[in-house]
Formats: sequence, C-alpha cells, structure tokens
Amino acid sequence: MTGEPRVTEALARFLVASRWEDIPAAVRHEGVRSLLNFVGGALGGSQDEAVNLAAAVLMPYFGAAQATIIGRSERPDALNAAFLNAVSANVLEYDDTHLATVIHPAAPVVPGLFALAEQRPLSGAQLVHALILGIETECRVGLGVMPTHYRRGWHITATCGIFGAAAAAGKLLGLDQRQMAWALGHAATQSAGLVESLGSMSKSIGVGNAAKNGLAAALFAEAGFTAADQAIEGRYGFLPVTSDSVNLGAITEGLGESWEILGNAYKPYPCGVVLFPVIDACLELRARLTPTPQQIEEIVVVGHPLLRERADRPLVETGREAKVSLQHSVAATVLEGAAGLSQFEDRCVADPAVRALRAKVRIEEDESVPVEAALVTLRLDDGRSFTEHVRHGRGTPGRPMSEAELDAKFLEVAAFGAPDADALGLIARFRAIEDEADVAGILRLTVPAR
Amino acid sequence: MTGEPRVTEALARFLVASRWEDIPAAVRHEGVRSLLNFVGGALGGSQDEAVNLAAAVLMPYFGAAQATIIGRSERPDALNAAFLNAVSANVLEYDDTHLATVIHPAAPVVPGLFALAEQRPLSGAQLVHALILGIETECRVGLGVMPTHYRRGWHITATCGIFGAAAAAGKLLGLDQRQMAWALGHAATQSAGLVESLGSMSKSIGVGNAAKNGLAAALFAEAGFTAADQAIEGRYGFLPVTSDSVNLGAITEGLGESWEILGNAYKPYPCGVVLFPVIDACLELRARLTPTPQQIEEIVVVGHPLLRERADRPLVETGREAKVSLQHSVAATVLEGAAGLSQFEDRCVADPAVRALRAKVRIEEDESVPVEAALVTLRLDDGRSFTEHVRHGRGTPGRPMSEAELDAKFLEVAAFGAPDADALGLIARFRAIEDEADVAGILRLTVPAR
Repeated sequence: MTGEPRVTEALARFLVASRWEDIPAAVRHEGVRSLLNFVGGALGGSQDEAVNLAAAVLMPYFGAAQATIIGRSERPDALNAAFLNAVSANVLEYDDTHLATVIHPAAPVVPGLFALAEQRPLSGAQLVHALILGIETECRVGLGVMPTHYRRGWHITATCGIFGAAAAAGKLLGLDQRQMAWALGHAATQSAGLVESLGSMSKSIGVGNAAKNGLAAALFAEAGFTAADQAIEGRYGFLPVTSDSVNLGAITEGLGESWEILGNAYKPYPCGVVLFPVIDACLELRARLTPTPQQIEEIVVVGHPLLRERADRPLVETGREAKVSLQHSVAATVLEGAAGLSQFEDRCVADPAVRALRAKVRIEEDESVPVEAALVTLRLDDGRSFTEHVRHGRGTPGRPMSEAELDAKFLEVAAFGAPDADALGLIARFRAIEDEADVAGILRLTVPAR
Repeated sequence: MTGEPRVTEALARFLVASRWEDIPAAVRHEGVRSLLNFVGGALGGSQDEAVNLAAAVLMPYFGAAQATIIGRSERPDALNAAFLNAVSANVLEYDDTHLATVIHPAAPVVPGLFALAEQRPLSGAQLVHALILGIETECRVGLGVMPTHYRRGWHITATCGIFGAAAAAGKLLGLDQRQMAWALGHAATQSAGLVESLGSMSKSIGVGNAAKNGLAAALFAEAGFTAADQAIEGRYGFLPVTSDSVNLGAITEGLGESWEILGNAYKPYPCGVVLFPVIDACLELRARLTPTPQQIEEIVVVGHPLLRERADRPLVETGREAKVSLQHSVAATVLEGAAGLSQFEDRCVADPAVRALRAKVRIEEDESVPVEAALVTLRLDDGRSFTEHVRHGRGTPGRPMSEAELDAKFLEVAAFGAPDADALGLIARFRAIEDEADVAGILRLTVPAR
C-alpha cells in the first residue's frame, strides 16, 4: 500500500508517545466512568451460568494464583483471569457501547490491565491512561472496517476488542514502538468472533479471547516475538481481509486530538440499544398510572423501522432472547415498573401476566421517527388513552447517563451478582481511582469474603 | 439457509458415528504416516527460536504439569502444551500438505490429542482414528471456502485447522452429536490467522492457537457450553463470513466414503512446494557431476510462470526468506548436494560461494511446463552443458514420499532439533502405533533425558 498511511506504525507511535498529562480532563473522566461501569458489569455477571461453566472448564488448566476474578473466589493465572473477567463483564448485555461502531469497549480491554496490576505495582492513573488508549485503538480500528465488517458477520467487540487489549497491555508493559507494532500484529492475526455466535454462550468465548489473547499479544511482543510490519493495513492484513469498506484515515487522523471514548455510552437497561427510548416511554407511563393487566386493551409503539427489524419478537422463551424482544420489554416494563436485570430473567419471561400482555403490543413503523426516539400509547378498556413521546432515550448521546444513574446501575448489578459486596465502597474507590497508588488493593475488595 | 445442507449438523453426525472399523486400511496407514511426519517435525522444530521465545513467554502462566512438549523438558498444562507442540511442528515449514487446500493438516490437530492422551488412557488406534477425522474435518471445511478464502488473506492452516482440532478432540472426549456441533461452533467463532503474518514469528501464534483453542472448543462443549446451531453455514457463520465462493457440497458430500487424508503429501524439502521439482533436478545433476563454483557459468531453470511469481528472490538475507527463494534453493543444492534443513539456515544463506552462485541462476518461464515439473540446465565454463527434466517432484501426488524417504526425513529432522533422541526407536514405535495400548508411554520417549 505505497503512499497510504502506515496504520500499524502510526498507532504504535501514538500509543508509545502518549503521556497522562496529554489526556484532557473530560477524557480522563470518561475513562473512570467506563471503568466503573465495567466493574459493575463484571460483579453483576460473575455468577452467570456461562461464567460458572467457563470457570469450571478452565480450572484444571489454571496456572499460578496470580489474579482476581471479580466477584469470585477462584484465583487463576493472569491469562485465564483476563478471559473470565471479560466474559463476566459482557455476559449480561449491560455494557458500555461506542455508538459509531457498536463496540462494547471496556470488556476486552480492562481485564488484561487488572491482571497486570496484580503482577507489578500499578497506579490508578496508569490504569485509566492505558484503558483510554485501548479504547481509542479498538474504536479507531473499528471505524476503519465499518460498516461492512459487522454486516459481513464479524462480532466487532471481539474482533476489534483484541486490538484495544493489546494496545492497553502494551502501554502498561512499556513496549517500545517496534514492540507495540508487533503487539498489534499479534492481535491482528488472532482477531476472531462471529455474529452467528450471538445468542449462545459461544459469544462469550470470543469476548474472553479478545481480552486474553490481546494481553498475550503484548507479552509475546515484549519478549521479541516478531510480527509483520503492516499487519493491520497490509495487502493480507486485518483491514482488507475483514472489511469491504476500508477507511485508513478514520484510524489515523486526529490521533491524540479527538477521543473516541467521548462517544462511549452506558446501557441503562440490559437489552438491545434500539429498545431504550421505548422503555423510557413505558417508565414514564408507569409513573402516571398503574393499570392492571386486565385493564390494558392495547399498547402501540411507534418507532423507526429498525425497531421492528431488530426487536420484533412476540414469542420468547428465555431471558437471553427477551433482551432483543420489543414485546417483552414493553410488557415487563409496564407491569413491573422497571427494566432491570430482573425483568430479563427467565422468571419474568415465563410470568403469565407478562406473557399475556406481550400479545397486546403492536408496532407501527414511522420513518420520520429517529432511532433514538419513540412514541408509546397505552389504551385502557375504559376508553382512556395515554401517550408518551421520548425524543432521546436514556444512555444515548443526546441524554447520557448521569453520575447518579451510573452509580444506581452499579448498585443494581452488584446486588444482582454479588449481593455481599460493599458496592458503595467500591463506587467510592473507583471514582477516586486517578489518585490510587496501587490498583491491586482495590481489586481484592471485589472478591467475596471466604 | 433453508433447503441447504445443514453442514454443522452433518459433520457432527458423521464424527460421532464414525467407528475405527469403518476406516479403510489405506486411510489408517496414511494417518500413521501423518503422525510420524508430525512427530519428526515437532522434534526438528523444538529448539527453534520462536519455540524458545513462546515457551519463555508462556511459562509464568503454565498450569499443572500435565503434558509433554515434544523434544523439550518443560511440562505445562494440556492447553499450553497443545499450543507449543503445534508451533514446533510447523515452524520449519516441513509439514504435511493437503494439496487441494494447502492446509498443513497435522500441526493443528495432533497436539490436542497428545495432550488428552496424558490425561486419560488412550490407545494408538483411538489416536489415529481421531487424527483421521480431524484431518477430514479441517480439509473439508477448507474445500468449502477455497479458493477465495486464502486469496482474501486467511492463513488456512490456522483458520481451518481449528475445526480439525475441535473435531478430533471432541471424538476422543466422546462428545454426543449436540456437543460435537457446539465444539465446531466454538471453533468457528475462534477461527483466526492472517496470511500477512507469514514470514514473521506471528504466524506461529495462529497455528498454536488453532491447536489450543480447538482443544478448548471441545472441552467447553463437553461441559454444556452452548453454541449456534449453524455456526459453520449460517448467515453470519464461518463460511459466508470468510469466503466469497462457499461450496457446501464439498464439505458434506461423500463423508465417510472418500477421505481427504489420501490427498495429504509430505514435504521432502523444508521450503515452498513449487521448488520441489527444481531441487529434484539439481540433486540429479549433482549425482552426475560435482562442479566447483568457479566452473559454473550459468544455471537455467525452465518452469511454470508460478515459479517466478512465488520464488523469484535473488537477494535473501535469512534462512526464513531462503525457503521461498528459487535462486538460493538452486545454488545451495548444487553446491552442497542436499536441500535439507542445513541448506536453509542463515549459515548457508551467508556463504560467499552460495551467494555468488545465486547470481548465476536464471529463470525461464514456460506455460507448457506443469507446476509439478521443471527443467534445469547447468552450463560449465568448458562449454559442456547438462540438463535434467523432472516430471513429478518428490512429495507431489505423482511421486509420493516412500516409507524409506519418510523415515530418512524423520532422522534428518530429529538430528537437527533433538540429536539425543532415539530417532530409530521412535520411528519403530510410531509405525506400530495402531497396536499401542497407551499412547502416553511413547510421548515420554520424545522428551530429552534430564
């Protein structure tokens, strides 16, 4: 690719040169928010069936007790810990989301950093700095391959997440520019994850591998294990192989000036992003009245056609499916007055009242309604009718999660997956992470007392 | 894909139903040859710099001492052993080769089987059976995505090898049909490896991961970790995502009737396949005369245009590059009368006589010469001229490696990488593997005495 930007080299140079002092305050703050959201998600997912199974499968192969699994008592080697923490953090579908690429950035990146923090002293500022750089790397690589990458069938959180994991770990390891390029090269050749796996536990293997193999990529590079010079942009490199719409400039332009983490959002509900404004409207309606199921004649949802395309699932059997069902999300929210983890459990999916109400939900497509908006009308059997119009769903760029909402989410997920954890204490410690001298101490607080 | 073959299901059904008694004798025999070639390759590669570095990087994360690394004294957990044995076996470019797909089939598949053999009793027949099924699976998946898969930039030994590794390990674990389909699904979502990485150590990470993650895929499936039903053929499954020329029938037709391992060849020289007939001709010339470098005026090689396309490299600096250099291969073979591992070491590449002779090698393209043939003419300064015409290079389907040639290759690679090993004893034991009651005993013989 003569004359084209040397993407691998440019990223490596940027990553090695970046200094904490160069990171704007708003970017640092978003790094802290991403980290807090990650830890909450990992606590919440820590007892999920997929995590339990994965830990049981890998336990016979665990190495020396090096690293914490958030919310669990096992203590595996750093690489296996990275795998399991990434699975936990992502398994509830309650991640952060970089909206331009639909990457969930923190899950692949943070676990390797946590694992390294227990192998060598690491300050909170170093951790947040590496996290910000990891997110920058994976999101820019993602921008370089979208939209055809995801459309073709690549699960982008896994396939691009590994670049973030390698970059962030490489930063903490103090790699030089050549080593950093090798780390990115080892990430490129390990990049994997299919959209087909979504909806099964197999999805978690892709996300876990992104964290684990990204960390390994940096460790191999540190030791002098060589990679191709242009592993990302080369003729047979990551970009042309996995995308039919390569955009080199999206990766390299404005590096260190604009920051992708500022486009990171936090899911307020553990379900598909298109459902957020609909759920908001349902919650507003519930704040005005509390109808019995029998009183409800019909619920009409007016939204962008994407809403039907992604979430028209009137018949669902499991909590996992319910996370992408408009009908379930509406019925559960209206009846229970909430759309938290509890509303996407098998219990709620099987509830006869929720099931009956799902059948009364009707979708109307309207091209003029933006994706981040929705109108929901509740018609009662006495002829009364109530409508709510939400213009920007909570957790979208027009209406980002407030600090209080992020804290409340942390408390909810912690109570769900780690009810014995000192959630308020953890919030305080992670919110002050930039002043923390040694991260390892906080990590131990995430583990249940024996 | 309604109406299309359910590829994942068909493969899983075949793998679970296959019995040792159903495997034809010729197929079993080729399984033994593949295995023997693998063990030799792993002994030969066991002290390679890439293997030394990889072992050093991974050592801090090794789990319990479960499994042998062929030719080395470390004893890691089964997953790390699978990774390192695959790296060793493939690192010298001296593999077996399934010519229709250019997959090197044994390297990703055997290591997981060896690792399992040390965790539970395993007979030689079980091992060879699983190996044959693994090779069948990876080569058929490869046929389903070729030729566009490799052309796009996928390193097929890694990307398809993982399916073979998962299938073979799944067979040994006794997975049922549903679990086997999950194992293939976990393989699909972990499939990775870029052609861009070839020529650097990074290539080895792809091959190592294929073995390790394929084994892990089977272990996850055994535990009930779910995957998509159509992870291979689904809309966002492995086939359409990684190929623009999907051929479902190539995967499913004639399963259990025709056997891909019968199209497996064994490299007689540790270099690119297109060079084999050229080297054969040079060896024939050397059998007739032993010219001094000064006597040689010119060496003219007439061959298919692919020869120039793939191997026209008059200037080479390292042994790794020399493996794809026509000029080096000719010069080294004519001067040293051999084309073994020694001729592709940095020592030979730097030899002034070899260097001088490389400059006297000329390529003539001739479309009428098949790829598996070549003519080499040696012109001396006294006006004499000698020509050899090779119609089928050694190690191509028209002239497969004989048993004696395979044994001689084993002795060469063992002497190169593991000079203290009892190579003759190992040949005898592996040639009789079908009657071996417990494979673990032989594996210990591949490790150097302390």
